[in-house]
Amino acid sequence: MVKKGSKEERDLVRILWDEKFAAMRAPASGGATKKPLPDVLAGNGEKYLAIEVKTTTKDRIYIDSPKIEGLCEFSSIFGAIPYVGIKFKYKKWRFLSPEDLFKTKNGNYRLDLDLALEKGLEINELLGKDKQVKF
Amino acid sequence: MVKKGSKEERDLVRILWDEKFAAMRAPASGGATKKPLPDVLAGNGEKYLAIEVKTTTKDRIYIDSPKIEGLCEFSSIFGAIPYVGIKFKYKKWRFLSPEDLFKTKNGNYRLDLDLALEKGLEINELLGKDKQVKF
Repeated sequence: MVKKGSKEERDLVRILWDEKFAAMRAPASGGATKKPLPDVLAGNGEKYLAIEVKTTTKDRIYIDSPKIEGLCEFSSIFGAIPYVGIKFKYKKWRFLSPEDLFKTKNGNYRLDLDLALEKGLEINELLGKDKQVKF
Repeated sequence: MVKKGSKEERDLVRILWDEKFAAMRAPASGGATKKPLPDVLAGNGEKYLAIEVKTTTKDRIYIDSPKIEGLCEFSSIFGAIPYVGIKFKYKKWRFLSPEDLFKTKNGNYRLDLDLALEKGLEINELLGKDKQVKF
């Protein structure tokens, strides 16, 4: 069974390797445990990233609260920085800290294209290659 | 398709979580890239481990050279310590550095039960909980 969103996950993993990060996708089945796993785990010896991958053809996406809590829990134990990596169709990847997501009234999360463009890191910024310089 | 050795991988992942390491198995398919992936990747914020899992009912196992090179390459890029985790039937897990494996004449690797018992770390030693004290 192909997991939803896996094409984007595979693309992201390829980009990470090209940028000298070793990256691995989570197993489709969830594997051994009921423990929360990020979609992609990557490291370059200095920086460790746990990424929940989302993709949409719309300009807004909702994310269940347990997904975000799981991402943060895994990251905290593993020793990685948690990110939501969002691929809006026809847009570049953007990476947001869980704390930058909009929390809805029912306790879940919402990510709008506008928020992603405003708060999200581009991939070079995520990987620490191209720090934004403010004048 | 269930990957060979996956029961032991799942067991190991469970043990790691119990010991406060966040652990993830590699996807069965190899996933996005032809890049070498360890069977299990684990971290606790201080220590990152990339583990190639082997299991056998015999008292000796052979490991192809590319497997070990791949393990070392991934570990070096990701920033993890590479280990071969070996589960001989009816024995406890042992964890060996690639450099402690026996290199055969044709360039592959061999791991004997004797060598595993002599050089291999037990799981508590691997996880840094129970340093061996010499008197």
